[in-house]
Amino acid sequence: MFNNTKTIGILGGGQLGKMLQQVSLDLDLKVKYLDPDAQAPCASISTKFTHGSYLDYQTVLDFAADCDIVSIEIENVNLEALAQLEKDGKKVFPQPHILEIIKDKRLQKQFFVDNNIPTAAFVLIDSKDQIAQHQDFLPAFNKLGKGGYDGKGVQKITTLADAPKGFAEPGLLEKAVDFDKELAVIVARNQAGQVVTYPTVEMVFHPEANLVEYLLAPAQISDSLDQQAQELAKLVAEKFEIVGLLAVEMFLDKSGHILVNEVAPRTHNSGHHTQKANYTSQFEQQLRAISNMPLGSTKAHSMAAMLNILGEAGHEGPVHYEGMDTVLALEGVFPFLYGKAITKPFRKMGHVTVLGENKEAIEQKIDTVKASLKVISK
Amino acid sequence: MFNNTKTIGILGGGQLGKMLQQVSLDLDLKVKYLDPDAQAPCASISTKFTHGSYLDYQTVLDFAADCDIVSIEIENVNLEALAQLEKDGKKVFPQPHILEIIKDKRLQKQFFVDNNIPTAAFVLIDSKDQIAQHQDFLPAFNKLGKGGYDGKGVQKITTLADAPKGFAEPGLLEKAVDFDKELAVIVARNQAGQVVTYPTVEMVFHPEANLVEYLLAPAQISDSLDQQAQELAKLVAEKFEIVGLLAVEMFLDKSGHILVNEVAPRTHNSGHHTQKANYTSQFEQQLRAISNMPLGSTKAHSMAAMLNILGEAGHEGPVHYEGMDTVLALEGVFPFLYGKAITKPFRKMGHVTVLGENKEAIEQKIDTVKASLKVISK
Repeated sequence: MFNNTKTIGILGGGQLGKMLQQVSLDLDLKVKYLDPDAQAPCASISTKFTHGSYLDYQTVLDFAADCDIVSIEIENVNLEALAQLEKDGKKVFPQPHILEIIKDKRLQKQFFVDNNIPTAAFVLIDSKDQIAQHQDFLPAFNKLGKGGYDGKGVQKITTLADAPKGFAEPGLLEKAVDFDKELAVIVARNQAGQVVTYPTVEMVFHPEANLVEYLLAPAQISDSLDQQAQELAKLVAEKFEIVGLLAVEMFLDKSGHILVNEVAPRTHNSGHHTQKANYTSQFEQQLRAISNMPLGSTKAHSMAAMLNILGEAGHEGPVHYEGMDTVLALEGVFPFLYGKAITKPFRKMGHVTVLGENKEAIEQKIDTVKASLKVISK
Repeated sequence: MFNNTKTIGILGGGQLGKMLQQVSLDLDLKVKYLDPDAQAPCASISTKFTHGSYLDYQTVLDFAADCDIVSIEIENVNLEALAQLEKDGKKVFPQPHILEIIKDKRLQKQFFVDNNIPTAAFVLIDSKDQIAQHQDFLPAFNKLGKGGYDGKGVQKITTLADAPKGFAEPGLLEKAVDFDKELAVIVARNQAGQVVTYPTVEMVFHPEANLVEYLLAPAQISDSLDQQAQELAKLVAEKFEIVGLLAVEMFLDKSGHILVNEVAPRTHNSGHHTQKANYTSQFEQQLRAISNMPLGSTKAHSMAAMLNILGEAGHEGPVHYEGMDTVLALEGVFPFLYGKAITKPFRKMGHVTVLGENKEAIEQKIDTVKASLKVISK
């Protein structure tokens, strides 16, 4: 039920926190942030910022002392502290025991299997030394169980010759999926058990570079596949009984099956376009879900794409955005800058959401953005 | 040209400032606020809030000392200070000499006449004692020259018997327009002279109560009238050579002519729906205009309405929002709460933007909002 006198504490005060803060003001919600970086995006924009480590047990307890609801914008936080807060009677969403499962890719995969959620075949291994025992699994990905963040913790093992590139710590070996598309669905669930899903999105890959170029919403798939992907995401959220947001990343394989790849229990890159293209943004949705408000409509009013704004290679230092005027003059093109003072090569400095009538119109605008906008240091 | 290292100082830190602050974060702009109310909406949400009077010459100079650009979210500010800042080489937008004209309704009307901008017939009067000399003008409105804000400063004079209700101070007597619709257009102009207009909106009146019930965007008028209204707003902005935003309120009279009623040199109630229904909100547009960025597209992706959330009669004290869950559950209905701690009868506590397929669908949602949402004090 709506009550904007409650205090909501968020572990993390990065760009996701910043976008949460912007939208929290619509309903005059009281949200505070904890981040170990005194220069974090939320530090300069929120009057309710605490400088401290969300990995430290006591710091988290102290931060949450005056909170009614505790949530996260990053999952690598002190879970013992969250469990204690939950025991003390605070609303902690997503629930700490779910974060425990998601944090460890081995437990996460096992959870999928236990709940009949389709996922790529895998075996648990204690270290890369065991890869040789599973030659029939190759080509595969060796994923680190714990501690893999931001693309780290994943290593492709094409043949046994790659085995030394694997991890010394416990992880899993997952059969590489020969996929047609990479999809994602954001799902939200509140305490009352109401669940909503956003339309399925797809990662569009550069035809030559084989790198994700941008995200497209909705995914260019059949209505039936879109429904299947949304139903699958809903199933995962319901099996977890999660309260909050869950970003469900999936593969559409070449035979038309959808497999769950992995999940993130928070606002996610694959939902940034919802700020501009959907009735309720993922950020507002998280706040609604954890505060047990009715969930908002996920309807899209426009087709959209999202691409990251990364620091240029060879530039490190105070940030300067070159070519921004060209971008700002484009219709339906919305840059978001995260407020990081220092740029580094490939550092995520912001994103651009692009609305358009169709994929072609959107791609034309993306091309202009890519040709114009350079994040450099002078 | 885009440069987000400049400091922008805004006189006023009320709800318009709050909505400006939200959107300023998209481009990581450095915006600070000055407001005499220590509890103003911006006070609790911005790390760059100064408590002080924007009516005080020295306070304004001190506040603006470290600013590159100075602007307003309320027009009743110290104009001598702004003129001095302009003389000192700061960018002050809208320009102080334009604020001088707009601030005095007598000068404003004369400006319209001097620039062939159609407006209702009027005569200047020194006080209500002169109303009797202009009996042929009745029914008319006696408008106070200076100091009329928030609907104060306007008095209807139907017959000579109403003359004592007029103002003792200099003002004007304006012939009442027998209008078909009340329209408004927001126009933005940047330093480079680029001008954009938003689609025309109309005030929808309650059929019996004769009070504005909500604002509808776009206005239900012919394309030709919509174009005329936008062209007229553009003409006013260009004649002023204003840099910033101008809200142009107009009458569509019963013979199909459009007359300018009055203008406001800032973000305006008649543009709140642009936050949700247009590519660029009026708040972002103001920031773009005063920072000499390219202006954003004013295109609407959805039909929209906006209604004010007012404090219930008979309630004064700490605010409580009743029925909010019903409102939050409606598709395409977006409440904005201004963050005022205390409600008073008819105090503007927020607004609701409603998107819908057509006027009927929108009105149905408005009816639900009006039946459910009560701003009370318990």
